[in-house]
Amino acid sequence: MEGNFLYLTKIGIDTYQHAVVFMRKDCHVCRSEGFNAMTRVRVSTSNKSITATLITVSEAFISHQQAGLSDVAWKMLGATEGEVAQFSHAPAVDSMSYVRGKLYGVDLTDESANKIVEDIYNGHYSDVQLAAFVASCADDRLSLAETISLTKAMINCGQRFQWPKKVVMDKHCVGGLPGNRTTPIVTSIIAANGLTMPKTSSRAITSPAGTADTMETMTPVALSYEHMHRVVEQHGACLAWGGSVSLSPIDDIIIRIERALDLDSEGQLVASVISKKIAAGSTCVLIDIPVGPSAKVRTHSGAERLSHHLVETGAALGLHVETLITDGNQPVGKGIGPVLEALDVLAVLRNEKNAPQDLVERSFHLASRLLKMAAESPNTEDVTEAEKPLAFYYEKAKDTLRSGRAYKKFIDICEAQGGFKEPKTAPFKQSLFSNAEGIVSYFNNRFIAKLASLAGAPNAPLAGLKMHVRLGDRVREGQELLTVYAQAQGELDYALDFYRCHPEAIRIDKEIL
Amino acid sequence: MEGNFLYLTKIGIDTYQHAVVFMRKDCHVCRSEGFNAMTRVRVSTSNKSITATLITVSEAFISHQQAGLSDVAWKMLGATEGEVAQFSHAPAVDSMSYVRGKLYGVDLTDESANKIVEDIYNGHYSDVQLAAFVASCADDRLSLAETISLTKAMINCGQRFQWPKKVVMDKHCVGGLPGNRTTPIVTSIIAANGLTMPKTSSRAITSPAGTADTMETMTPVALSYEHMHRVVEQHGACLAWGGSVSLSPIDDIIIRIERALDLDSEGQLVASVISKKIAAGSTCVLIDIPVGPSAKVRTHSGAERLSHHLVETGAALGLHVETLITDGNQPVGKGIGPVLEALDVLAVLRNEKNAPQDLVERSFHLASRLLKMAAESPNTEDVTEAEKPLAFYYEKAKDTLRSGRAYKKFIDICEAQGGFKEPKTAPFKQSLFSNAEGIVSYFNNRFIAKLASLAGAPNAPLAGLKMHVRLGDRVREGQELLTVYAQAQGELDYALDFYRCHPEAIRIDKEIL
Repeated sequence: MEGNFLYLTKIGIDTYQHAVVFMRKDCHVCRSEGFNAMTRVRVSTSNKSITATLITVSEAFISHQQAGLSDVAWKMLGATEGEVAQFSHAPAVDSMSYVRGKLYGVDLTDESANKIVEDIYNGHYSDVQLAAFVASCADDRLSLAETISLTKAMINCGQRFQWPKKVVMDKHCVGGLPGNRTTPIVTSIIAANGLTMPKTSSRAITSPAGTADTMETMTPVALSYEHMHRVVEQHGACLAWGGSVSLSPIDDIIIRIERALDLDSEGQLVASVISKKIAAGSTCVLIDIPVGPSAKVRTHSGAERLSHHLVETGAALGLHVETLITDGNQPVGKGIGPVLEALDVLAVLRNEKNAPQDLVERSFHLASRLLKMAAESPNTEDVTEAEKPLAFYYEKAKDTLRSGRAYKKFIDICEAQGGFKEPKTAPFKQSLFSNAEGIVSYFNNRFIAKLASLAGAPNAPLAGLKMHVRLGDRVREGQELLTVYAQAQGELDYALDFYRCHPEAIRIDKEIL
Repeated sequence: MEGNFLYLTKIGIDTYQHAVVFMRKDCHVCRSEGFNAMTRVRVSTSNKSITATLITVSEAFISHQQAGLSDVAWKMLGATEGEVAQFSHAPAVDSMSYVRGKLYGVDLTDESANKIVEDIYNGHYSDVQLAAFVASCADDRLSLAETISLTKAMINCGQRFQWPKKVVMDKHCVGGLPGNRTTPIVTSIIAANGLTMPKTSSRAITSPAGTADTMETMTPVALSYEHMHRVVEQHGACLAWGGSVSLSPIDDIIIRIERALDLDSEGQLVASVISKKIAAGSTCVLIDIPVGPSAKVRTHSGAERLSHHLVETGAALGLHVETLITDGNQPVGKGIGPVLEALDVLAVLRNEKNAPQDLVERSFHLASRLLKMAAESPNTEDVTEAEKPLAFYYEKAKDTLRSGRAYKKFIDICEAQGGFKEPKTAPFKQSLFSNAEGIVSYFNNRFIAKLASLAGAPNAPLAGLKMHVRLGDRVREGQELLTVYAQAQGELDYALDFYRCHPEAIRIDKEIL
């Protein structure tokens, strides 16, 4: 071990996913290496190396012999208190030349996509470099061929599941529609029919809840690879968080930057979805694409283009993909936010009278298409089922729910994941009322989602909205339109302020007689 | 003042230009506002508001009633110890919609460029957002019209100088050529001829030295607006750092991100140069564009295009711009790095025998063109001079230097800026030798610059290189090619390691008989 070492210490500083190292500005390492604030630094123990951003300190909370690591840097390095580490300038990130190339108009290839994804996976990219990569792929800047290259690269890093079944089902929704929480219902129906559906879901990206957030209010979702396998072996399905099994570790990193920039990339979306499904060992995937003026996909032609890229990227990599373009004009169900959506899901699975009918019907549509896809698969065991029309599978899905078999399956899965618990409701709430009489004629999904986010969802799992009206409903002046739930008064106030500034989130039009 | 306040404290943490606020993860503000690590937060005192990135802390170096500010955040806010501040979520940065638009293919306009530049100036952009903006303008993505819009926007924020002269000269080099330190020489020649040249220069961007770094080894360069004015009034010129007079405050911010990405944008380069010259009150500017395979501009056609954009952008805003396309095949002078270049400059100004002849000749070329531009200017007082050929002005420039008048002017300027001091040499040095006999046939300017940077330049002002050979020189095996200077052994080692891995920085070809 050479001269330029310091003793590592965990200083209890949270910098989220951004690895940071703190050193005294005048310690011997900063001086001999010529480090300054915000220098990208290589930190190496005898076991591992990471790249971190340096923040220099002139006062005494760390000593001249110590380097303090932020929580994420500590975890990435697998450090122990007092361990010796060496420091040097981070080497130049060679794959950034491909990012610059892409910005200059050179297409990504299998090789360049691989190098970029590998460097991101290994934590070599700073946030600024990640932002340049995200920007280089923004909108429709990735061709189908580039998207396939990126998808392959993303599959190459991270875990990959194997299942002892020839037909493995999966579903996905491209998002943008608040409350569209069909996954727990559809997965329960499919598994109750003897099929395999090892469902891993993400947490919310920009929305007020992801399926993983919603499921977590009822059962543990951060399962180990082995635990997930056991659940699927026993019950044919699981409802787990994808992040804890590292199916697509760079996805979370890219998504964090996309969120900060509020920037979408169709190619990255396709690569993210398809790579995760292939890594999860799926063979048949149905993708829900909600279309509406304030959904993620706004036009039918946009949905067709996205559908084409999803299907073709899947096909290029041996995955059977079908898509379902659905109505994205208003939120689905009543609840928006982890717990509030969980309550809708439970109402549907329990066949309660007040269960949201739109959520029920969407679930039947998706489940029936999945049942038909499974039956038609060349790998399926029971070939006689392939000939049946979609209506047959629709009735089959309906019967699975109505009979209580889907609910039983759901509870079995939750118990196997670590136990089912009934979700609680939030301590703070306030209702919002119509200030006119008329017909509910428009929902701005983005404003509705933002309202739920400001109320605290998904970080505050009990927070969110409960919608009391739907498109076409006739409302009186003073009638309750929705209720905002929050876990802190400050967040409730933010949400209410936002609603006051954006009353157009819900439009009430005078009735035309 | 409402409930969500904390007491500000300066915690001696340097985060360079990136404003950071540190709070206890479980303090009442984080809880009530729903803040998490890396949240963008608005910090407001009774006087001012800034946007900062939150880092949360779980241990005791700040209390639950305090918020710690990093040095730059403290400075931007103009805070005092113990001052009360309020905290809220940073509002969405509206102008980011224009950045997204630009990434989606929508051109910048006067209005959108203004909004973006204003928000950057006010510190509303995070590094990630800045990176997206830089990426959106990369390479040649800005049209001439967009470049003019961006230039106008950059002039609108920051100080603007006025001079009581009709003809105000300036020069600029687009960079990329190590050691091309003509500015102090040319400025001294021009001012010694009675013209006005209030020269402000930048610090190094990606190079081992900027003119401001070099000048700072001989005289103070961080002058106030008033001080600079006094120097120019007395001596017709100054040699100051542009950053301390806020001529183009957003330039430094953008350049830091471009450096981190190693990404160039022609449009941003043009906007940066022209906006600074106009803000500096110049009327006639000569721009040196070195061209060579490893210079910033690699081809003659690239230089022509850049020249066209510089001249046209200047013309659109009332600035007379001329360009000089020069040989960029090898470093200029002997020294590379702040002090080592200062030594070359002094050798030229003092007419020393060993002064680098290429630096002398480049200076004469630039000075003569500037003298002719001044004479031809419609605003010039002495119209008879306009008819003279360039050779006349070349002799005039030569005579100004040879007679010692340029040196006297240089010393006068330094004294007025705060005093002249002789630069010192570095404590660590090592020579590198040719391992073959032959002819010096190629310099890779990028590797040469990188070598000087690794040795510590410009942060370590004494660090850098001294070149002992030039293109076409015949060398023996074992002959000294260059000497590396450093202020720390670690940096010297870095540089030597790099040279061992990149011996192609200087190519020695067998002599063809």
